[in-house]
Amino acid sequence: MNNIYKGLDLDRIVKIHAPATVANMVCGFDILGFAVNEPYDEMQIRFSDKSGITIINDDEYNLPTEPEKNVAGAALIAMMDEIETGFGFELTIKKNIKPGSGVGSSAASAAGAVVAANRLLNDRFDKENLVRFAMNGEKLASGVKHADNIAPCIYGGVTLIRSIFPLDIVALNAPTLFVTIVHPQIEVKTSDARSILKHKVLLKDAIKQWGNIAGLVAGLLQSDYELIGRSLEDVIIEPVRSILIPGFDLVKQKSKEAGALGGGISGSGPSIFMLSKDEATALVVEKEMKSIYEKLGLDHHTYVTTMNHHGVQFVS
Amino acid sequence: MNNIYKGLDLDRIVKIHAPATVANMVCGFDILGFAVNEPYDEMQIRFSDKSGITIINDDEYNLPTEPEKNVAGAALIAMMDEIETGFGFELTIKKNIKPGSGVGSSAASAAGAVVAANRLLNDRFDKENLVRFAMNGEKLASGVKHADNIAPCIYGGVTLIRSIFPLDIVALNAPTLFVTIVHPQIEVKTSDARSILKHKVLLKDAIKQWGNIAGLVAGLLQSDYELIGRSLEDVIIEPVRSILIPGFDLVKQKSKEAGALGGGISGSGPSIFMLSKDEATALVVEKEMKSIYEKLGLDHHTYVTTMNHHGVQFVS
Repeated sequence: MNNIYKGLDLDRIVKIHAPATVANMVCGFDILGFAVNEPYDEMQIRFSDKSGITIINDDEYNLPTEPEKNVAGAALIAMMDEIETGFGFELTIKKNIKPGSGVGSSAASAAGAVVAANRLLNDRFDKENLVRFAMNGEKLASGVKHADNIAPCIYGGVTLIRSIFPLDIVALNAPTLFVTIVHPQIEVKTSDARSILKHKVLLKDAIKQWGNIAGLVAGLLQSDYELIGRSLEDVIIEPVRSILIPGFDLVKQKSKEAGALGGGISGSGPSIFMLSKDEATALVVEKEMKSIYEKLGLDHHTYVTTMNHHGVQFVS
Repeated sequence: MNNIYKGLDLDRIVKIHAPATVANMVCGFDILGFAVNEPYDEMQIRFSDKSGITIINDDEYNLPTEPEKNVAGAALIAMMDEIETGFGFELTIKKNIKPGSGVGSSAASAAGAVVAANRLLNDRFDKENLVRFAMNGEKLASGVKHADNIAPCIYGGVTLIRSIFPLDIVALNAPTLFVTIVHPQIEVKTSDARSILKHKVLLKDAIKQWGNIAGLVAGLLQSDYELIGRSLEDVIIEPVRSILIPGFDLVKQKSKEAGALGGGISGSGPSIFMLSKDEATALVVEKEMKSIYEKLGLDHHTYVTTMNHHGVQFVS
């Protein structure tokens, strides 16, 4: 037995739930994201006699199992680059978060894998390092090392990515909000959603946006629901991207009429999320969403859930 | 005696101190400002037998005394437009905040006048309405109804102007910080400072800016001094405007080396402010500022003070 293994329980099996996340929280494009309690991926990891990373899929998605082509694998490779190798990991993934839905499916795989592996390693790495590793999964998935799904998935709650280089993550102590998500079953490619953005914005719009971001952060930290609602406004990204999502304007309008505080595109879409102060409102919002997509004749899936304040969770 | 006067003490004299304020708080251009304890204007108001507004200057600045040409007068006119007239005000102003210094001199006059008059009227108007009236003084002074000096002058502390139309002011519960201000005796016209700004900004810079704004608000509300320091960065306005202020880069560099959390241009300049966690650091920062402007051969004035959490203050 090599001393690499010192203090490690080689027979341990770690099981986790890795939550879905909403990035690009309205005015907080690229900087604000939050975790939700449903849906979540289920993952299990253990040391393996085989060196390297073995990935087993326990779902219907047929995602690649070669570690360097799998987002969870890419995250684990980055982690293993910083430890003495000598052992392998066997990772079993049961995805419940549909890839491409815009609620952080790839982030859940990448973040879940490194949090679970870190537990096998007796929590050798802190959360910021885990985010750093998991961002390699995002790079594989979208070509960009973004952290606004990864960070809330690992930290829980609402997280601010003040800066990517250097990485600066701030966990915001926000109140529990109810979240209604609708996933219209259309494809919006992240690359398309990114390519239609303008490279320059009007200073006056940027000022409006940063007023809203400041208001949203203050509203969350001061539990001022009305301020949260007034600040959930995006004058820069949403007007451009929402045209890719049929029914978007109507969902927003009807949700607000139903009492939602506000919401917008989840990540780069196609999912749309709405925040509510209470469950009853969140359920009415769901009803409105369903009604809109039924009329549009578009397959869709909805969730009514709450913000998740713990991030990746260890189970039994 | 007309019932307009019902319940009012016609012999009352209200005396106030109206504090200097720092607008455009680094990354918070147009949206974040804060009040300081020094310098402040001294004002006194009472009902007058003469109708309309009588302004008496008790200082060396020879500011206009015609109400419609005086920022305090313009603010009071806006206020009197919303009450039954029938009485006049006599306002005596002793300005200690030098006009044009960039620390909210016009805002102090305008805000102080309406807060004082409102006390004579038994606090008929709330703070938001007082900001609305006082903004007419800013319009007279700079052509623009901005509130990022007026709001902190009236509310105290750090205030967020989430939106001007409609007016949405959020008082941020920030920790006490020490403030060092240097006023190099040069003239920077607000109109010049505004005209050199670009109308469009890069989206990637805007994202960086709103990450910093979110970080600054979170740092203030969570009393996280290091986060405040990391977030005091302006990638949009300061690089353009700082060229109007000789010595700016050196002041910033030396202040940070001395331990300041950070800072930048106060308002549209020429004053520069730096925030520190303790008084000792704020005093070293002052020494560095003096040394720089002595070497540059520029007359200057410095203040070492603290954030003011109460805004306009009533005195005996």
